Amino acid sequence: DFLQALQEVKPAFGAATSTLEMCRLYGMLDCGLRHRRILETGLALVEQVKSSERTPLLSCLIEGPSGSGKTALAATIALDSDFPFIKVVSAESMVGLSESSKCGIIAKIFEDAYRSPLNIIILDDIERILEFVHIGPRFSNLILQTLLVLVKRVPPKGRKLLVIGTTSMREILDNMDLVSAFNVSLHVPTLDHEDMRRVLVSLNVFAPEDVDAALGVLEEKMPIKKLLMLVEMAAQGGEGAEAVYGGKERINLQRFVDCYNDLAS
Amino acid sequence: DFLQALQEVKPAFGAATSTLEMCRLYGMLDCGLRHRRILETGLALVEQVKSSERTPLLSCLIEGPSGSGKTALAATIALDSDFPFIKVVSAESMVGLSESSKCGIIAKIFEDAYRSPLNIIILDDIERILEFVHIGPRFSNLILQTLLVLVKRVPPKGRKLLVIGTTSMREILDNMDLVSAFNVSLHVPTLDHEDMRRVLVSLNVFAPEDVDAALGVLEEKMPIKKLLMLVEMAAQGGEGAEAVYGGKERINLQRFVDCYNDLAS
Amino acid sequence: DFLQALQEVKPAFGAATSTLEMCRLYGMLDCGLRHRRILETGLALVEQVKSSERTPLLSCLIEGPSGSGKTALAATIALDSDFPFIKVVSAESMVGLSESSKCGIIAKIFEDAYRSPLNIIILDDIERILEFVHIGPRFSNLILQTLLVLVKRVPPKGRKLLVIGTTSMREILDNMDLVSAFNVSLHVPTLDHEDMRRVLVSLNVFAPEDVDAALGVLEEKMPIKKLLMLVEMAAQGGEGAEAVYGGKERINLQRFVDCYNDLAS
Amino acid sequence: DFLQALQEVKPAFGAATSTLEMCRLYGMLDCGLRHRRILETGLALVEQVKSSERTPLLSCLIEGPSGSGKTALAATIALDSDFPFIKVVSAESMVGLSESSKCGIIAKIFEDAYRSPLNIIILDDIERILEFVHIGPRFSNLILQTLLVLVKRVPPKGRKLLVIGTTSMREILDNMDLVSAFNVSLHVPTLDHEDMRRVLVSLNVFAPEDVDAALGVLEEKMPIKKLLMLVEMAAQGGEGAEAVYGGKERINLQRFVDCYNDLAS
Amino acid sequence: DFLQALQEVKPAFGAATSTLEMCRLYGMLDCGLRHRRILETGLALVEQVKSSERTPLLSCLIEGPSGSGKTALAATIALDSDFPFIKVVSAESMVGLSESSKCGIIAKIFEDAYRSPLNIIILDDIERILEFVHIGPRFSNLILQTLLVLVKRVPPKGRKLLVIGTTSMREILDNMDLVSAFNVSLHVPTLDHEDMRRVLVSLNVFAPEDVDAALGVLEEKMPIKKLLMLVEMAAQGGEGAEAVYGGKERINLQRFVDCYNDLAS
Amino acid sequence: DFLQALQEVKPAFGAATSTLEMCRLYGMLDCGLRHRRILETGLALVEQVKSSERTPLLSCLIEGPSGSGKTALAATIALDSDFPFIKVVSAESMVGLSESSKCGIIAKIFEDAYRSPLNIIILDDIERILEFVHIGPRFSNLILQTLLVLVKRVPPKGRKLLVIGTTSMREILDNMDLVSAFNVSLHVPTLDHEDMRRVLVSLNVFAPEDVDAALGVLEEKMPIKKLLMLVEMAAQGGEGAEAVYGGKERINLQRFVDCYNDLAS
Ligand SMILES: Nc1ncnc2c1ncn2[C@@H]1O[C@H](COP(=O)(O)OP(=O)(O)OP(=O)(O)O)[C@@H](O)[C@H]1O
Ligand SMILES: Nc1ncnc2c1ncn2[C@@H]1O[C@H](COP(=O)(O)OP(=O)(O)OP(=O)(O)O)[C@@H](O)[C@H]1O
Ligand SMILES: Nc1ncnc2c1ncn2[C@@H]1O[C@H](COP(=O)(O)OP(=O)(O)OP(=O)(O)O)[C@@H](O)[C@H]1O
Ligand SMILES: Nc1ncnc2c1ncn2[C@@H]1O[C@H](COP(=O)(O)OP(=O)(O)OP(=O)(O)O)[C@@H](O)[C@H]1O
Ligand SMILES: Nc1ncnc2c1ncn2[C@@H]1O[C@H](COP(=O)(O)OP(=O)(O)OP(=O)(O)O)[C@@H](O)[C@H]1O
Ligand SMILES: Nc1ncnc2c1ncn2[C@@H]1O[C@H](COP(=O)(O)OP(=O)(O)OP(=O)(O)O)[C@@H](O)[C@H]1O
Ligand SMILES: [Mg+2]
Ligand SMILES: [Mg+2]
Ligand SMILES: [Mg+2]
Ligand SMILES: [Mg+2]
Ligand SMILES: [Mg+2]
Ligand SMILES: [Mg+2]
Repeated sequence: DFLQALQEVKPAFGAATSTLEMCRLYGMLDCGLRHRRILETGLALVEQVKSSERTPLLSCLIEGPSGSGKTALAATIALDSDFPFIKVVSAESMVGLSESSKCGIIAKIFEDAYRSPLNIIILDDIERILEFVHIGPRFSNLILQTLLVLVKRVPPKGRKLLVIGTTSMREILDNMDLVSAFNVSLHVPTLDHEDMRRVLVSLNVFAPEDVDAALGVLEEKMPIKKLLMLVEMAAQGGEGAEAVYGGKERINLQRFVDCYNDLAS
Repeated sequence: DFLQALQEVKPAFGAATSTLEMCRLYGMLDCGLRHRRILETGLALVEQVKSSERTPLLSCLIEGPSGSGKTALAATIALDSDFPFIKVVSAESMVGLSESSKCGIIAKIFEDAYRSPLNIIILDDIERILEFVHIGPRFSNLILQTLLVLVKRVPPKGRKLLVIGTTSMREILDNMDLVSAFNVSLHVPTLDHEDMRRVLVSLNVFAPEDVDAALGVLEEKMPIKKLLMLVEMAAQGGEGAEAVYGGKERINLQRFVDCYNDLAS
Repeated sequence: DFLQALQEVKPAFGAATSTLEMCRLYGMLDCGLRHRRILETGLALVEQVKSSERTPLLSCLIEGPSGSGKTALAATIALDSDFPFIKVVSAESMVGLSESSKCGIIAKIFEDAYRSPLNIIILDDIERILEFVHIGPRFSNLILQTLLVLVKRVPPKGRKLLVIGTTSMREILDNMDLVSAFNVSLHVPTLDHEDMRRVLVSLNVFAPEDVDAALGVLEEKMPIKKLLMLVEMAAQGGEGAEAVYGGKERINLQRFVDCYNDLAS
Repeated sequence: DFLQALQEVKPAFGAATSTLEMCRLYGMLDCGLRHRRILETGLALVEQVKSSERTPLLSCLIEGPSGSGKTALAATIALDSDFPFIKVVSAESMVGLSESSKCGIIAKIFEDAYRSPLNIIILDDIERILEFVHIGPRFSNLILQTLLVLVKRVPPKGRKLLVIGTTSMREILDNMDLVSAFNVSLHVPTLDHEDMRRVLVSLNVFAPEDVDAALGVLEEKMPIKKLLMLVEMAAQGGEGAEAVYGGKERINLQRFVDCYNDLAS
Repeated sequence: DFLQALQEVKPAFGAATSTLEMCRLYGMLDCGLRHRRILETGLALVEQVKSSERTPLLSCLIEGPSGSGKTALAATIALDSDFPFIKVVSAESMVGLSESSKCGIIAKIFEDAYRSPLNIIILDDIERILEFVHIGPRFSNLILQTLLVLVKRVPPKGRKLLVIGTTSMREILDNMDLVSAFNVSLHVPTLDHEDMRRVLVSLNVFAPEDVDAALGVLEEKMPIKKLLMLVEMAAQGGEGAEAVYGGKERINLQRFVDCYNDLAS
Repeated sequence: DFLQALQEVKPAFGAATSTLEMCRLYGMLDCGLRHRRILETGLALVEQVKSSERTPLLSCLIEGPSGSGKTALAATIALDSDFPFIKVVSAESMVGLSESSKCGIIAKIFEDAYRSPLNIIILDDIERILEFVHIGPRFSNLILQTLLVLVKRVPPKGRKLLVIGTTSMREILDNMDLVSAFNVSLHVPTLDHEDMRRVLVSLNVFAPEDVDAALGVLEEKMPIKKLLMLVEMAAQGGEGAEAVYGGKERINLQRFVDCYNDLAS
């Protein structure tokens, strides 16, 4: 049955995909000022938690459209802190579990944190942790109530905790009173053409004279993740993607357009 | 009870009907350019998953009206790849199971894939896997959340995975944020009269002078599966279908019309 | 408790009322062309399943208002085939069982069929199998999903299966995508006055001069089952129904009208 | 816990209040033609079930406003038949049981009937058996589906069954397709002033000159049960009700009016 | 867990707060004619149950706004009867129990009553017993159905039962068909200024010249319980409430107004 | 599983964060008259419970916007009483428990109180205890019904109990009939600019000439908790918060504005 199926699955839990480095498959490119400021604010909060007596608990919500780079930013803040206890709560590591099992896992992670002096907990893709779906709408109130309480629960004397949440559904979390449960809220934008040009140029995958044409095809605003996937798809064919990234070959414009049309969203 | 009933049923699980060949009962006929391009794009994704370092996971949604050929196309892409691990997740092999058992089975298939280097997983008829029904609407949020996560979960280092989904309810999957969970989305059309003529002529079941009359009876657009079922029904009677397909006999026009009227949709 | 209560009840399961002959308590009278054509089409499908290689599975929905003769027609098609495996799935034989037990029983019947060469499965009164009720509406999605899959699941190589469904709620089944899961859909009409006259005359229960007066009382359209029940009720009294059917006595018109007014629907 | 509580309660099950005589606490008075005709029709159905070959099953719904006399009428028909097996299904004897236990009990009563040649089953207050409440509305679909099937299930060869249902919510049962599951439907009216006068006169509890005044106070239509309760309340005081019924004393008009105002509905 | 928690709690069940005297913490003051008539009618029903043969069961609903004195009135009727078996069904004594446990307890109390000759059962605050809340609305249909049946179930031969219900949500109980399940319905009003003056004067807590001023502050209508609480709060301070009630001190008007503004409803 | 996870968690239950002192991390500053009067009224209720015979139970709801100081006020009242039994019921100490476990814990706390002469129970953040969420809306009716009863249940003879509830959703609690279950209701306001100035001046974290500029940036009304968090964040950087509070450094106005913009609500 299911439990048996899960046990065989277990070894993968919390491993592989949930490590912080996996969150930055394409590395961190320069996407402009607004992305940079999020990293700065995040690191300021890291500092405050460490040094302030009156705020042993701080919480920060990183929100923005799908693929805008939220998870990569949260991971980067955590990696750049020197905190010994860093944990990611994500739906990926709780596939198929019951609501109450998920609550148990989440509560356990917070309890563990209360035993270590300096802690960061990332709640990645909160709408997914909440099992949210627009139709209904439906979600796990059990998990929601758990998060509402844990995000505000002050750790015991001498323990410090920074909670970083990510979501692409700010408005919904707001309706759940979950946004105001965080102290700070930071918005991650999609890229505008100026930002995209910077990324494309730095990747050096187009012939210089093609960059404008390529941009001309694309929508006004685009999330960084989608742009990088598109480049990757278009770089296939010919001598292969490595030839393109290695500078030996350039992306064919027509192929770029075709790939763009096949993208799901 | 039910569990006992299931155990007797088990031997048939994953057998017979769920093999890829069974998905193409009528073979693959030439239905025009648009069907062909889907196969090409599918095979390009097969290539990219195999060769690209940055996209160990790719996902592709094949969507179109009921009977348009989605499952046959997905099966063909999988059969034409040379990937050693190919699995079909379909409601057919999970009849009567509880939501959580289904989640367990699905999660297990993905976990198995993470242990093999090159993998294809077909999620056939996603609305059926989700137990979706318009009235309500109702569906299994447990299974939906499982799919939302698994379709985006990057396999561990060195493993490659192509996920192919099929659905005839794109809009509903979109409301569930499931379409944008796929990287690529491909539309399978119904046949227009030009496409149908090509199919009917190549089947050679009508007297040449009857083809136009036959087409004249039919609606503007028709899915390939319905057209082939109609031909099969109309070929009955007389000396039998084999006589018709063998070229010894032709389909009677009046019988063709009668059968057309009895079709359920 | 309930399970114990059920065990005592078990011996009656699948017995008595669920035999095909019991579905035709009043025999099969001539109700006009439209009823006849349904029997013909049904038998043509029986032939096609038997002989065609490409359609090892065919399915046919017999739909029409309450009491129009659907079950009797399905039973007659099955009885007139020479198929060795004929099973009826009906709510009658699953009274009080849980949704999942019902699914188990239904799945078991299909699995059994996959082991026999020629099979007919009748899904009688699908709305009742689905536990449908307008208020809500409510129904068993578990059973619905089971039917949606089983009606389309192709039996293994060498096995043939004809599925015959009956329902008096076509529109609702359509909203559930269940109508289009069937290959063929046949409508059973209520009787008009011409049809009723034929039935009444052939029963010979009225004085010839009373037939028109009797018809004059009745609504425009009436299902065969209601008409036969009305005749039976009106034939009571006096020397008894046998005297009337035996031709010794005639139905009294006033009593006919009184009985008509008491009918529930 | 609850089960233990129930066990202590058990001895009262099916006893005392559920016997047929208890349904006629005030006896059967003459309330006019319409009540009488219901008894006649009921007894005609008793005859038909006994003698007809084609209708081994008949069912009859007695419906009318609260307190109109439905249960007393059903009990009287059953008592006046000479059938050996008479069972009452009522919510009273299933207080606090789960839906599935209730279904088990109901199914058991029908199964028992299938073993006896001549049977009457009274389904008293069907809305209560169904646990119906307007708010929502809510009801037990499990029990509803059980009734929908059992009321139409033909008993095995040689067994005869008359099902009598009562309800004060005809419209709701109609929305549940339960009215048309019965063969016959009979309406029990409230009393008009003519009927009430007959009852009051025959009870002889008012001074002859007070009858008109008493009627003048009352609403246009009133159910028999409410009228009899009102008389009983008004007869209290003074020398006591026995003095009134015994003819020694008369009901005081002012007290009659006061009691009338206190009645709950 | 919960069950263990409950066991420790048990000793308090049915004790302390649920005794009838506890329902009249402020005693019974004269609040005017309308309150008095309720006591009289209640005692008349006590008499009728005892003496009448035809009404072994009587039921009476005492309904009115929150704090109007319903529970105290019901308790007084019961205390003034000489019935040996008096039981209170109230949510207080069933805190935290499951719906079915509550049904079990309620059914048990009625079954116990059926073994004693003369019985009174008080169903206090029926909306609370039903776990009713306006949002939804939600309530326990299991408990509702139990009450609907028990309030109408006639006790066995020789047993007499008076059921007294109280509620501040008459309309809602009416929508549940629960009001008409009672024979008699009595309305408890809030006090008007005339009634309040009588209460204040008889309590003698204001300087005579302050009574009018005090009344002038208050709303038009006020329930007795709220008025008495207000007096009690205002009597605090200074030498203490006992000094006020004892006539040594008077309530300060300004303090009276302040307290009035703090009252929750 | 979850239960095991909980057991490891247990040591933290009721400890650390739930102590009353933890509720006042920033101490109690002077925020103006309205906050002060709440403390006075609270202490008057403490007195009344202790001395009055007629009100062994009093209850008081402290309600106001998020962060307005409700919990700190409730804690202060409790700390300033000399009652031996003070318990806090809060969602924090019941994370992830089932509804019925929570009810058990709550009921247990009240039962314990009934054994001690003088008791205060704080129900902190009632909407959170009720697991309330606007979407739906959803909440635990089981817990609601428990509170509705416990808040009104009079303790046994000789026991005194003051119940203090806090909530930022007065209207919702009112719809649940929970506000009127309390005797007294006190509103905690947000601070206006006058109040804020007093707080900022007394904290002495701005250069005197900057206070007006700082106020000019802020919204009209602000809860005390948000203001204190903002000051704390802005005090970071430079020589550190201690330098600012210690008077060695002043808050930089620009940094103050930046922090203000990052605040989540
Ligand atoms: N400056 C940057 N900021 C964020 N991500 C970047 C940046 N430069 C490159 N990336 C890459 O862009 C991708 C951003 O994807 P990421 O998963 O973080 O987005 P997301 O907003 O969390 O998406 P989703 O909405 O699907 O959760 C990562 O693969 C990351 O390596
Ligand atoms: N070029 C083609 N593309 C797809 N299918 C084809 C083609 N030529 C013939 N077929 C036949 O058409 C049928 C298509 O049916 P298929 O089950 O794939 O459709 P579907 O869209 O998946 O239907 P459903 O909506 O019921 O799932 C198959 O039997 C296949 O053998
Ligand atoms: N030509 C006919 N076709 C169908 N039924 C006939 C015919 N002649 C007589 N009958 C009788 O009419 C009755 C039809 O009832 P049947 O139960 O089949 O109707 P139904 O449409 O299935 O009703 P329901 O809607 O209640 O399921 C049967 O008793 C059958 O014996
Ligand atoms: N002619 C009559 N028909 C029916 N009941 C009668 C008649 N004469 C007297 N009665 C008395 O009237 C009462 C009718 O009550 P009964 O319980 O049958 O009504 P009901 O319609 O079933 O009520 P409810 O709606 O509460 O179920 C019985 O006590 C019965 O003894
Ligand atoms: N004449 C009276 N009638 C009723 N109650 C009175 C009277 N005189 C004084 N009281 C006191 O008034 C209070 C009435 O409160 P009670 O709890 O009975 O009201 P209630 O309507 O049941 O309130 P709730 O709506 O909260 O259940 C009791 O404490 C009682 O002692
Ligand atoms: N006069 C005061 N009244 C209340 N709180 C004060 C006061 N002065 C300073 N504070 C501080 O303000 C903070 C108020 O926060 P508190 O948690 O009590 O607010 P709350 O209204 O309960 O918030 P929430 O809506 O999040 O529950 C506490 O840290 C407390 O130390
Ligand atoms: Mg992300
Ligand atoms: Mg398909
Ligand atoms: Mg039928
Ligand atoms: Mg009745
Ligand atoms: Mg009360
Ligand atoms: Mg608080």
